[in-house]
Amino acid sequence: MSNAKLDSKVVQNLKDVAQKLRIHSITSTQAAKSGHPTSCASLAEIMTVLFFQQMRLNLKHPRDPSSDRLVLSKGHAAPILYAAWAEAGLFPVEELRNLRKVDSDLEGHPTPRLSFVDVSTGSLGQGISVAAGMAYVGKYLDKADYRTYVIVGDGEATEGAVWESLHFAGHYCLDNLCVIFDMNKVFCSDVGTEMEVYRERLDAFGFNALVLNGHDIDELVKAFINAASTKGKPTALLARTVKGKDFLGIEGIEEMHAQPLGKRAEAAIKHLQMKIANPNVRLSPKKVGKCGHAPEVHINNIMLCSPPNYRLGDSVAPRLAYGTALAKIAADNPRVIALDGDTKNSTYADKMRNAFPERFIECFTAQQNLVGVAVGATCRRRTVAFVSTYATFFTRAFDQIRMGAISHTNVNFAGSHCGCSIGEDGPSQMGLEDIAMFRSIPGSTVFYPTDAVSTERAVELAANTKGVCFIRTTYPNTTVIYNNDEVFAVGLGKVVRQKPSDEVLLIGAGVTLYECLAAAERLEEDCITARVIDPFTVKPLDVRLLVKHGKLCRGRIVVVEDHYQQGGLGEAVLSALADYRNFVVKHLYVTTVPRSGPPAVLLDMFGVSSRNIYKASLAIMKK
Amino acid sequence: MSNAKLDSKVVQNLKDVAQKLRIHSITSTQAAKSGHPTSCASLAEIMTVLFFQQMRLNLKHPRDPSSDRLVLSKGHAAPILYAAWAEAGLFPVEELRNLRKVDSDLEGHPTPRLSFVDVSTGSLGQGISVAAGMAYVGKYLDKADYRTYVIVGDGEATEGAVWESLHFAGHYCLDNLCVIFDMNKVFCSDVGTEMEVYRERLDAFGFNALVLNGHDIDELVKAFINAASTKGKPTALLARTVKGKDFLGIEGIEEMHAQPLGKRAEAAIKHLQMKIANPNVRLSPKKVGKCGHAPEVHINNIMLCSPPNYRLGDSVAPRLAYGTALAKIAADNPRVIALDGDTKNSTYADKMRNAFPERFIECFTAQQNLVGVAVGATCRRRTVAFVSTYATFFTRAFDQIRMGAISHTNVNFAGSHCGCSIGEDGPSQMGLEDIAMFRSIPGSTVFYPTDAVSTERAVELAANTKGVCFIRTTYPNTTVIYNNDEVFAVGLGKVVRQKPSDEVLLIGAGVTLYECLAAAERLEEDCITARVIDPFTVKPLDVRLLVKHGKLCRGRIVVVEDHYQQGGLGEAVLSALADYRNFVVKHLYVTTVPRSGPPAVLLDMFGVSSRNIYKASLAIMKK
Repeated sequence: MSNAKLDSKVVQNLKDVAQKLRIHSITSTQAAKSGHPTSCASLAEIMTVLFFQQMRLNLKHPRDPSSDRLVLSKGHAAPILYAAWAEAGLFPVEELRNLRKVDSDLEGHPTPRLSFVDVSTGSLGQGISVAAGMAYVGKYLDKADYRTYVIVGDGEATEGAVWESLHFAGHYCLDNLCVIFDMNKVFCSDVGTEMEVYRERLDAFGFNALVLNGHDIDELVKAFINAASTKGKPTALLARTVKGKDFLGIEGIEEMHAQPLGKRAEAAIKHLQMKIANPNVRLSPKKVGKCGHAPEVHINNIMLCSPPNYRLGDSVAPRLAYGTALAKIAADNPRVIALDGDTKNSTYADKMRNAFPERFIECFTAQQNLVGVAVGATCRRRTVAFVSTYATFFTRAFDQIRMGAISHTNVNFAGSHCGCSIGEDGPSQMGLEDIAMFRSIPGSTVFYPTDAVSTERAVELAANTKGVCFIRTTYPNTTVIYNNDEVFAVGLGKVVRQKPSDEVLLIGAGVTLYECLAAAERLEEDCITARVIDPFTVKPLDVRLLVKHGKLCRGRIVVVEDHYQQGGLGEAVLSALADYRNFVVKHLYVTTVPRSGPPAVLLDMFGVSSRNIYKASLAIMKK
Repeated sequence: MSNAKLDSKVVQNLKDVAQKLRIHSITSTQAAKSGHPTSCASLAEIMTVLFFQQMRLNLKHPRDPSSDRLVLSKGHAAPILYAAWAEAGLFPVEELRNLRKVDSDLEGHPTPRLSFVDVSTGSLGQGISVAAGMAYVGKYLDKADYRTYVIVGDGEATEGAVWESLHFAGHYCLDNLCVIFDMNKVFCSDVGTEMEVYRERLDAFGFNALVLNGHDIDELVKAFINAASTKGKPTALLARTVKGKDFLGIEGIEEMHAQPLGKRAEAAIKHLQMKIANPNVRLSPKKVGKCGHAPEVHINNIMLCSPPNYRLGDSVAPRLAYGTALAKIAADNPRVIALDGDTKNSTYADKMRNAFPERFIECFTAQQNLVGVAVGATCRRRTVAFVSTYATFFTRAFDQIRMGAISHTNVNFAGSHCGCSIGEDGPSQMGLEDIAMFRSIPGSTVFYPTDAVSTERAVELAANTKGVCFIRTTYPNTTVIYNNDEVFAVGLGKVVRQKPSDEVLLIGAGVTLYECLAAAERLEEDCITARVIDPFTVKPLDVRLLVKHGKLCRGRIVVVEDHYQQGGLGEAVLSALADYRNFVVKHLYVTTVPRSGPPAVLLDMFGVSSRNIYKASLAIMKK
């Protein structure tokens, strides 16, 4: 790679294109009557150099696995991203005027509805994690030449997720990653000092950190060359920029943040047009090179390499079965990867690490980055990722999971340590809102397997299911109740106990399924027979099965979960029955914040034991 | 404050107490058969110097507003915290053997069930935010002498929340805050380098960062004196420590993490006893000084300083009414504070900032720290805090809010930009799972006011309601439908339209209440009359009102919300009716990830417009 200065004509062409991008940013936000044109303006030269001087792209197939990646973490600058792709020739520039219209995919913030967007952005501070995930795969799994760029605003640099991901990128020496900070001064009262502070911080986080003028084409080119040739550490470009740069009378004015130029647009556009030397300038992005390609991968029909191997009555923790199954599907497909947040001994992700260390990514105690890296790693269908930690610690990454769904991600999550059945560690460690959280994710699938056999099948199914999957893996040992050849499917529940005389239907999952079975035994002593259903997936729920058996049990249902009242299995059951008259449901749930104590004592104390179910069943018999 | 070296007898006494704390950490975890004694051992000297040499405490009233604060961010080291308080004389050391028992408040991780714990810890990386909130109040509101200490593990230092809070503490020059990093080497392959990296990072984040031997009493005392005399910036002590320090044969062995010593306990205790010069040593903490006290505060019966002042039919955004009400209750009570995450112009928290700038805390784009600071600021009932940002960005702080509930916090949250009714900005900015999240918080109250009058009253009620409160503040203007003197209460809904002939009950809140009213108009053209209810609070829901009017409307209910299906208003209604036969509920909700577009178009496209309600009402008439 040459270090030589660019020809002056080339520089002028790039300058001209940068001004065109500014004009597009104005006209599109004018047409939309909303948007952030001044936040686009600060990026014009950065975007131009990236698109027409640095990145290797494939215009016919923007998601070419071998092409360079760009994540626009400051998603509100979407108009200039769209403008760059239009100028590159992906679609007509006229389409930019459809920005934010309901029938256009050029949305207010980028989403993968667009062929050239890998992940949705707009919730600040998430881009670096995702880019780091892409770069990790590029360096260690694909071993390919593509580079990953991410553009971050200085406003979002206060997000903790940013520092989690910088730490990760530094730790794993991701020299194929280049983070560009658009320091457009909104937050900098004293710019010089602030730049130096950021340089020091990035340096301390393991980066090759360069300060430069983000509006100077030569400086930018030089910096990108420096980044590409720096080995063993990622590079951060701290680009001094001006918000609204080159917008006549608007440059650097904070009050113009987050609004179109309105009446000032015309003059601003004229001013920009005057700066363009060659109005007909047309540049093309570099093409993807002939070597250093990403390998072809196949991630369909992933299977356990051997079926579950338990005996009925065995006592096995579902979280252990999770680790076993993970290693089994990883043996079947070389693109299965596992990520964990320093809890691998407890989640049993270490079974994967022991079997395939090169496909295990330790993400430390930093759950936001853990999820972001997984979202990035699965982009362009490069891998099938399983992410594990304590169920409740996924609350730390709710926003990343939410954005993952908007990004059409297929990441699979496994949460151990759910419910008060974990016992003595106390409420801070208990997942009691995890089902509520994952159910609320659009298009998600929520598995709640009860025993080791069903847990292994849940892992296998999740690997092949689109959208976000969550597997709630129970902490204590549970009894194996399914044969190794039992067939499971998403949305199909199991009737695990029934008699023709059944008068009440009990629904439980995980530890509470066994409490239901025990309650049914006790009820039988009182000459009341109860049917018991294991839903297997809480979302989608097997509505047909519930309605059918609920009716056969005279409309009486008791549903029990080791989870809070809201948004869990109970409310899922109530939603499933909303449309039907004549059901009565007694919902047993963890009534308040639990405390430290033995699991069985806590289950009873907080209302979800067989004794509680027995009592509720007697009460519902009167209804 | 003297810089002189401690008398050698004093040092020996402190050393002896440190070993006693180690012994207690072993015996209590032995009795519990679980816990983290080795993580306690690394802290023994730090804890001893804090309790018996530095902190000013009040044993009769551990939550004395003028005494020093200590947050144990690494909550799994709880046994040594308990041991220190027992040795200080707060309760008999024999009680330590009840650790983790169900009838003891000495839980696996600390919770405020204990008189000497301000906030629950155990979810890593949250302690500094909380401590920074306490220190902010101490420095800027109380203007008192108390200092705040927080102990952080090196394992949790990878959490982004840590860096958010370090940035905050540095930015606000919290020189009354001292952060102690217990660098007990689990994560450090090359300790020297690692310490220097952390020193540089902390330095770049605005800290007075000192590296020291965390087992050396003299070094610790000197460092704490340095911290207390350093003005204008917070201090961080990077204490080199050894996990399992002084535990015979266990020192520094990673495999012994997170487990009691078992058979090795006896020898370890004997070894520690031999190191004690004076087994009868008894030390006392310093008492709270005579000056520099925190002022007495009163935070009950907070009222709007003037009633709502709107006209029926006015068009006002509820989020604007939120800002108005906030400034009004702040005028009524000087301990009302507001915190925002760089969204004050949109949430209208800036109305508070303009009126009372000294009680507005800008927390930048860092929602985890935003919430943590608020939790800290409200501890010991020093303030009434209102925290605002976009509703969906609270997902970023779900874990902090969850821990807030375990900490018995009374923080109030206001989330603007809810639902697809925000329009063109697109799905990344839309709160569509916020009700689900806040409903799942134990003991929470969820307000969903519809117009400006009810929003002002929601703010007033939240200020006086215990537990976590959430107010969903609608983005677009809505029509004022309540008189200024309308009385509102938690758990009381309003019937806003009714006739004796009503055959279907419509329930909506915010924008969907107006859609319900429009649907009712249209239904009346078809000779069907519909009743309409505004629930005001989603949690608790006015079950009595719903059941009564639901029955009067022949058990037919249509519930509509600008929120996803799971965990929101609809499932709250279903939960309320679970126990009753003979209701049929049609639930309308945002069916999938929305897109950019005009609000009215999106409401219709995603299923929650008056047209959708009209159709659903016709369908339910057949049931």
